Amino acid sequence: MGIRTAVAGASGYAGGELLRILAGHPEFEIGALTAGSNAGTELGAHQPHLRSLAGRVLAETTPETLSGHDVVFLALPHGQSGPLAARLGEDVLVIDCGADHRLTDAAAWEAFYGTPHAGTWPYGLPELPGHRDALRGARRIAVPGCYPTAVSLALAPAFAAGLAEPDAVVVAASGTSGAGRALKPHLLGSEVMGAVSAYGVGGTHRHTPEMVQNLSAAAGEPVTVSFTPTLAPMSRGILATCTAKARTGVTAAALRAAYERAYAGEPFVGLLPEGRWPATSMTLGANTVLLQTALDEAAGRIVVVAAVDNLAKGTAGGAVQSANIALGLPEELGLTTIGVSP
Amino acid sequence: MGIRTAVAGASGYAGGELLRILAGHPEFEIGALTAGSNAGTELGAHQPHLRSLAGRVLAETTPETLSGHDVVFLALPHGQSGPLAARLGEDVLVIDCGADHRLTDAAAWEAFYGTPHAGTWPYGLPELPGHRDALRGARRIAVPGCYPTAVSLALAPAFAAGLAEPDAVVVAASGTSGAGRALKPHLLGSEVMGAVSAYGVGGTHRHTPEMVQNLSAAAGEPVTVSFTPTLAPMSRGILATCTAKARTGVTAAALRAAYERAYAGEPFVGLLPEGRWPATSMTLGANTVLLQTALDEAAGRIVVVAAVDNLAKGTAGGAVQSANIALGLPEELGLTTIGVSP
Amino acid sequence: MGIRTAVAGASGYAGGELLRILAGHPEFEIGALTAGSNAGTELGAHQPHLRSLAGRVLAETTPETLSGHDVVFLALPHGQSGPLAARLGEDVLVIDCGADHRLTDAAAWEAFYGTPHAGTWPYGLPELPGHRDALRGARRIAVPGCYPTAVSLALAPAFAAGLAEPDAVVVAASGTSGAGRALKPHLLGSEVMGAVSAYGVGGTHRHTPEMVQNLSAAAGEPVTVSFTPTLAPMSRGILATCTAKARTGVTAAALRAAYERAYAGEPFVGLLPEGRWPATSMTLGANTVLLQTALDEAAGRIVVVAAVDNLAKGTAGGAVQSANIALGLPEELGLTTIGVSP
Amino acid sequence: MGIRTAVAGASGYAGGELLRILAGHPEFEIGALTAGSNAGTELGAHQPHLRSLAGRVLAETTPETLSGHDVVFLALPHGQSGPLAARLGEDVLVIDCGADHRLTDAAAWEAFYGTPHAGTWPYGLPELPGHRDALRGARRIAVPGCYPTAVSLALAPAFAAGLAEPDAVVVAASGTSGAGRALKPHLLGSEVMGAVSAYGVGGTHRHTPEMVQNLSAAAGEPVTVSFTPTLAPMSRGILATCTAKARTGVTAAALRAAYERAYAGEPFVGLLPEGRWPATSMTLGANTVLLQTALDEAAGRIVVVAAVDNLAKGTAGGAVQSANIALGLPEELGLTTIGVSP
Repeated sequence: MGIRTAVAGASGYAGGELLRILAGHPEFEIGALTAGSNAGTELGAHQPHLRSLAGRVLAETTPETLSGHDVVFLALPHGQSGPLAARLGEDVLVIDCGADHRLTDAAAWEAFYGTPHAGTWPYGLPELPGHRDALRGARRIAVPGCYPTAVSLALAPAFAAGLAEPDAVVVAASGTSGAGRALKPHLLGSEVMGAVSAYGVGGTHRHTPEMVQNLSAAAGEPVTVSFTPTLAPMSRGILATCTAKARTGVTAAALRAAYERAYAGEPFVGLLPEGRWPATSMTLGANTVLLQTALDEAAGRIVVVAAVDNLAKGTAGGAVQSANIALGLPEELGLTTIGVSP
Repeated sequence: MGIRTAVAGASGYAGGELLRILAGHPEFEIGALTAGSNAGTELGAHQPHLRSLAGRVLAETTPETLSGHDVVFLALPHGQSGPLAARLGEDVLVIDCGADHRLTDAAAWEAFYGTPHAGTWPYGLPELPGHRDALRGARRIAVPGCYPTAVSLALAPAFAAGLAEPDAVVVAASGTSGAGRALKPHLLGSEVMGAVSAYGVGGTHRHTPEMVQNLSAAAGEPVTVSFTPTLAPMSRGILATCTAKARTGVTAAALRAAYERAYAGEPFVGLLPEGRWPATSMTLGANTVLLQTALDEAAGRIVVVAAVDNLAKGTAGGAVQSANIALGLPEELGLTTIGVSP
Repeated sequence: MGIRTAVAGASGYAGGELLRILAGHPEFEIGALTAGSNAGTELGAHQPHLRSLAGRVLAETTPETLSGHDVVFLALPHGQSGPLAARLGEDVLVIDCGADHRLTDAAAWEAFYGTPHAGTWPYGLPELPGHRDALRGARRIAVPGCYPTAVSLALAPAFAAGLAEPDAVVVAASGTSGAGRALKPHLLGSEVMGAVSAYGVGGTHRHTPEMVQNLSAAAGEPVTVSFTPTLAPMSRGILATCTAKARTGVTAAALRAAYERAYAGEPFVGLLPEGRWPATSMTLGANTVLLQTALDEAAGRIVVVAAVDNLAKGTAGGAVQSANIALGLPEELGLTTIGVSP
Repeated sequence: MGIRTAVAGASGYAGGELLRILAGHPEFEIGALTAGSNAGTELGAHQPHLRSLAGRVLAETTPETLSGHDVVFLALPHGQSGPLAARLGEDVLVIDCGADHRLTDAAAWEAFYGTPHAGTWPYGLPELPGHRDALRGARRIAVPGCYPTAVSLALAPAFAAGLAEPDAVVVAASGTSGAGRALKPHLLGSEVMGAVSAYGVGGTHRHTPEMVQNLSAAAGEPVTVSFTPTLAPMSRGILATCTAKARTGVTAAALRAAYERAYAGEPFVGLLPEGRWPATSMTLGANTVLLQTALDEAAGRIVVVAAVDNLAKGTAGGAVQSANIALGLPEELGLTTIGVSP
């Protein structure tokens, strides 16, 4: 008998990707599926690609419907996970795909979200120094944001190795699923196809403090991050172009070596062979972040490009990876490094 | 009787867009259409959207086929325009959409192209200080690159107003038509749909020195540009996210004011109302660059986002705009600021 | 002073395309722009590509705001145009882009729309026999549906020439703008990109009786139409594959000849050279329907493929073409046969 | 130790999908990977999404490099599989993803391919009556074409149940990967994005006789098929709209019942709940064909819409399914019914 697992927010994009991965995982047994306004309808009405689960009826998201499970994945709007988790029992593994418990700095939370801080949970990015150990045996885990997953893994090694000034400039393109299933005019297919657009410019995107937190920890000093997200005409994927001022004397070889060291043995972070650059299509559906590094000597900057599937390694895959660690399962169980392409 | 006009490279994307615009222009009369390997075939086999010209047979690109015209637009691979222009007569207006005559610094040319520099022609970006006057009556014009069009108009006012340190970081997404019609595996539809990818990372893209040239002129001091282009799943459009370190004391209002001043009266550069951000779809087929500015106070950087149609204002539209100026026609003749959307 | 022109429904896709075309038309002067729930906002918030009109404030759609114009274009949900038109004066040219007045058969209207029939207006597809004359001097015009525009022009000549049995099977792919700007989950970019889907299968699409009406008129006997629309991952364009059982003895040459005869002299219907097949991209933004014919001898069917821009010739361009005719202007005025491509 | 498996044509799209599926299959052990002009290069240069195999060097496709395996998958241009298979040993399971051995009628082969017929192998579509048994223990298998997979499963039950006249009209939209990785101008991203286009109209597509063969077998009499393929702006997926004249007295309920009967117990063919229509996105990466039926009473036709991933169930997934059957493994082993979406 498997690990009894519930998914809250099962009719959304993150919930759907969790279910896709869990359905192929040998240890998890899918229990309650819950939703908000879609409660009472069949999963297949919202996630017709999940054939084997299509007839499941969505329950309402409440502590009661989620109780009786060993693991509960929360794919909910921010603000909802804290109260729910408080009523789920301390021995239940609660994995929050939302933002509530990612930040350590309550003031940063309040500045970006305008509500009281719900507290900090172990952070589900095991490839960053120190985090894997903190996840072992944890019963509360905060899954990183999709942009911070890409950007933190892209720049942390450079900062940790002292190769870069603490001044990062990041521009990232995301597929539209990153914005969820909300019915907003700018997310209509007619608007997004054939268009790249900017949003959240000037440091206002809520993922910014999470990047600052991770990169400052890596650098051992405060790092500023100028972050500009853009929306690209694709359903999935993030391509993050991450730059920082190079410290004097840094060479391209030293830069690459720092990444080889940082990610040696990491199953889900890949440094591409020299001369090849990441494309989001290389990671579709896979639990992988692909990286490449360059040193722009004329401009005096290091450039690291990262590709990730925002719903897979960027959300649901990362969540399952952390759950594996927390439960003492093999970290790679039920996850793939192989993307779907073309 | 109109201005007799030839287009060399008529079977390519830039050539096709030139013809689309020229066909709707009240003064130009379309004469010879020439091509390289496609010579001898009908235009309609390559440009079926150009209905009224579909039956025209493409001549070979030679000085002879191009002679006898008042204006010759060249949409050719670099290296070909200099020798052709030398045989076209000094009173013929030659508009080079290629790269050969854009750079003023022969060493920069040779570093990026590996061939001898062909010389410098008046630069067809009239919105940059000084250039409009140089274009009046000119008989040789170098059309700017598509990326430099967006990036130069996005950052020049900030540098010219002394608001930014001479250290720019630019990341731009381009539609695939920017790469032309070459049969390369990474340009196949199966590869580009659903994918954003990086290329030319680390300062190696050939448009970099052109941006450095324009922004250094604006700043009055050498400016470094860290430029990363990416390929987005759309046929047309560039969205350039352009940042530079803000000088002390710069305010968002001062930044915006500098752009309002710089582009007051410019028909083809639009500063969007506050709170709205450019999307490439706003400019499809139009001779427009749309801009928005932000000051990221936490990161200490100004951010300017620009959208442009790489084939229209970014190449063929800009070429016709410069031709209008050179010939003493109204600058806006035959050009539109209205895009095709959705 | 131009022809005073109002557009009702200016914040929608059809309204936007009307304005794009009208802004480039030498005779129309754009007056009132009206909307429903968007009344009181600036046009630029909804149609940022219409740069020169971006600051216009939308009025509410009422007989009062629309009065005082020579021409009123209605781009409204069905059911609204009849009452409005009744209060606009008989000498005002009212062009209805909606469905209300297209059908001649009240029973067919009621079967498909479930409301009383509002009456029949002259039908704005001048390329069908008899309609051009009826449009001259008309003051009420029903613009055809986008699918019927493509399908009727694709099959009418075959039926009119007696080449086909009265039994048509049509499958068409449409871009998402055909569904308008409604906020429906299946129209989100994340859903439509990378997907072709079927809808309205089994003869339930409301454009079906309009096709039946046009093709039966061409055939001189009742024609059945099996029509299946599909949604394709693009913003604009319809590709309609139209087939009918070939009558005995029909040859490919006779088929082609019928189309050459039918559309000789028609500026906006193009029969492609033999061997070339329509693509929607050939018609983007143009007032053109492109056709090609084939005879499938083994299957005993004629196949005619049509491409059209659903918003241009399929709606707004066709509307302006009919307005030109009604007002005695040159039919091609302000319209182009040249698409925007790639 | 696993079943030693070679893939010929590993650098193409079908080969890549075979490897993606085989890498997740518990019984196959991936041996030789071979290619034509790409021999000598690393797989990762062509299939960067196949992370775990990226360093494998491609051998040349020869009988020698393919020998020593239990199973050989051939993903090659037509004409190559017969000679190769003749030298691979009769006990080796050879699965041909190409067209050579699908047709039973040598005259049909020669009419469509212009070369001598290579012979007929057991046909890898186990969901068609009779085929599953023929695949058990087979050592040569012809994988169906991607279009025939969708169309045959969509219409065979209606013909088998005597519900339709033997006169089918099929229009299908395919993603660009169906055309393979060939460097052809019309497959460039700039050409296919934003466009649906027709090709192979008039019964000329080479998959036509395969459909005729399957549907005639189901009907027990010769069936004609008017087949029109179109190219849609997506990388993967086929949506086939399949119609046939309904026999007198057929009801929608009888139609649906025929499909429920035909596919009861079939793991990889799904009849959607009433009211829901297939979209290609529901099947991305999955070994599934999704169907829905309708009866158009006014037009007197049955309509069945099928969605399939052309590379998965349409090629590589179907190939592995047949291999499972031939080898006596569970038919579903290593295959999923769950798609990747959005």
